[in-house]
Amino acid sequence: MKYLARLKSLQTCFERDRIDAAFITHLVNIRYLCGFTGSSGVLAFCRGVWDFFTDGRYTEQARKQVNGATVRVDALPPLAHAARSIGTKLKRSRAAARILIERDYMTLGMQARLTSELECVIPRSRFRMIQTTGTVERLRIRKDQEEIDQIRKAVDLASSIFSAVLNKIKPQATENAVAAKLEYLARSCGAEKMSFDTIVASGVRSALPHARPTLLKIGRGFVVLDYGVILGGYCSDMTRTVYVGRADKRMRDLHSAVLEAQLAGIAAVRSGVEAQQVDSVARGVLRKHKLDRYFTHSLGHGVGIEIHESPRLAKGETTTLEAGMVVTIEPGAYIPGKGGVRIEDMVLVTDSGCEVLTPTPKELVIL
Amino acid sequence: MKYLARLKSLQTCFERDRIDAAFITHLVNIRYLCGFTGSSGVLAFCRGVWDFFTDGRYTEQARKQVNGATVRVDALPPLAHAARSIGTKLKRSRAAARILIERDYMTLGMQARLTSELECVIPRSRFRMIQTTGTVERLRIRKDQEEIDQIRKAVDLASSIFSAVLNKIKPQATENAVAAKLEYLARSCGAEKMSFDTIVASGVRSALPHARPTLLKIGRGFVVLDYGVILGGYCSDMTRTVYVGRADKRMRDLHSAVLEAQLAGIAAVRSGVEAQQVDSVARGVLRKHKLDRYFTHSLGHGVGIEIHESPRLAKGETTTLEAGMVVTIEPGAYIPGKGGVRIEDMVLVTDSGCEVLTPTPKELVIL
Repeated sequence: MKYLARLKSLQTCFERDRIDAAFITHLVNIRYLCGFTGSSGVLAFCRGVWDFFTDGRYTEQARKQVNGATVRVDALPPLAHAARSIGTKLKRSRAAARILIERDYMTLGMQARLTSELECVIPRSRFRMIQTTGTVERLRIRKDQEEIDQIRKAVDLASSIFSAVLNKIKPQATENAVAAKLEYLARSCGAEKMSFDTIVASGVRSALPHARPTLLKIGRGFVVLDYGVILGGYCSDMTRTVYVGRADKRMRDLHSAVLEAQLAGIAAVRSGVEAQQVDSVARGVLRKHKLDRYFTHSLGHGVGIEIHESPRLAKGETTTLEAGMVVTIEPGAYIPGKGGVRIEDMVLVTDSGCEVLTPTPKELVIL
Repeated sequence: MKYLARLKSLQTCFERDRIDAAFITHLVNIRYLCGFTGSSGVLAFCRGVWDFFTDGRYTEQARKQVNGATVRVDALPPLAHAARSIGTKLKRSRAAARILIERDYMTLGMQARLTSELECVIPRSRFRMIQTTGTVERLRIRKDQEEIDQIRKAVDLASSIFSAVLNKIKPQATENAVAAKLEYLARSCGAEKMSFDTIVASGVRSALPHARPTLLKIGRGFVVLDYGVILGGYCSDMTRTVYVGRADKRMRDLHSAVLEAQLAGIAAVRSGVEAQQVDSVARGVLRKHKLDRYFTHSLGHGVGIEIHESPRLAKGETTTLEAGMVVTIEPGAYIPGKGGVRIEDMVLVTDSGCEVLTPTPKELVIL
């Protein structure tokens, strides 16, 4: 039922924009709209009818998974097959058909192939490409109950392995060994895969927001752990920063300032608030502690089938938060040559505020 | 030195095609050409000079890694920054500048942004976009000694954990647990990550060439293990199929037919041979055993920085093999409802034949 509802919502957008046909090529959008999880396919719309085009490897899988669209398999590549089929249907139209394509995912090469295949069955003057951006993504921005439940499971799985990973963090262990253990536990608990490349950054490397684990041994200082899993197709994302050795006051203060900013960010989340406003509140707390210049990225992002979705919680982002959105709140402060702290939860936007999905405590753990 | 040589080779292509400027946007090609491994950047060429544009997160990393190009950092997104900078340089040209872009990686959205940024500094009539496909990829197809050494290390790492993984394969263990162990061992041995989603497919699921590990318990029958690691930025890829329980003659024969096809494929590899010819030789062996209709994919593919590179060893692929190419040889036979076998090695093409890089034995292991 959910797939039919999603397709129907998209059709409403098409009607508004007088779209005659559409080629959905971004696999994540295809999965969202009809349930197909494979790596090759095109979901095409033409005058109220949906077809899903794939190749022979996915015949069985598509028949099992696809909802709301008729599965079409051919020796032709899916995009060519879809173009021929939709082009033939459009042949009889009087006016030039308006064909929607996804500009952020269609490459120039794909567009050239699509156009030339359409031209095999319909004159160039009889169709017009309408490039769209974010049309399906705007539907995905608010999660339905089933999606929220799935995200909750992914978040809980990732949180459940955190304390076991802490046992691995000790002087002489490498960052890489910690990441290995973390990913092993995630997989053992049933995760399909990690939702992005795991970050384990120790000592001065904790000041690098995107540090990948190395074979360096963990010494005294902060260790940033930023990781997530995919479960049932949905992502989780969390960060905690722990300290190895005796933390002096400056380091403890750094952690508590970031935590204060994180809690202020969470408190600012509510349906009806602009995304940039939440970023601004958390950044204001760090400014009070003279740490805002060390907070070099945005406060958060939507999470769903993809690890980075709309909305961004960042300066200039005017999207209004709505109930059902799921976003990260992840302020950080990175002092070059010293170390860095980031604390990240996922939260569900509600009418009255938000629900923090990540159950892991946030006080500074000293190891 | 290697980066300068690669940039020089590409410039030779540009001179041949009278290219005035180029925007390299595919991150893998950027890494190959100048050494940058981050996730945001544009490598741009203009009249003999290379510049690398990135954002503030990567200032330090780019300065350390980039060879042969001047690092430029700005608050503008890298593509916009590159467009403004190169556009300004092209301003004084008499004829319309010919600007190369990568059609298989540039989306319609990127092209629109690139064009509008160029138009901020140079009239539309003064430049022309030349879409290219495979220009950098053709340079990457033959590996140099340093690349071969790196690939060898990745292959050896993956092979070294195979026997430890076998201990995990037993009735009652899940496919997922085997994958977890495999990935843990890979990471513990220093792998940066897996080169693709690990395949562990047992019982009738071994007949699905792209099966992902599930929580199903392993029972009697074939188990296909297909995995690879990334080490020093280069990929490995290997497949072995083992049998759990007593294998009857038909199953043993299936395995030995696939092995015979694999060895025949390897024997057919040599500099000067067409890629499709190698596929055809292996397929012929399976035909002899009446198994060719169960071999539903192509025989192999190039491997390097990406897990799938040119050349494909497939019907219709007329690329001539050359010394220095590294390809997989991976025939399979998949009997629906029964089970499947695939055996895959990586080989280095030489003048007189090929060197098999994968050291793991290929006889059927019964567990």
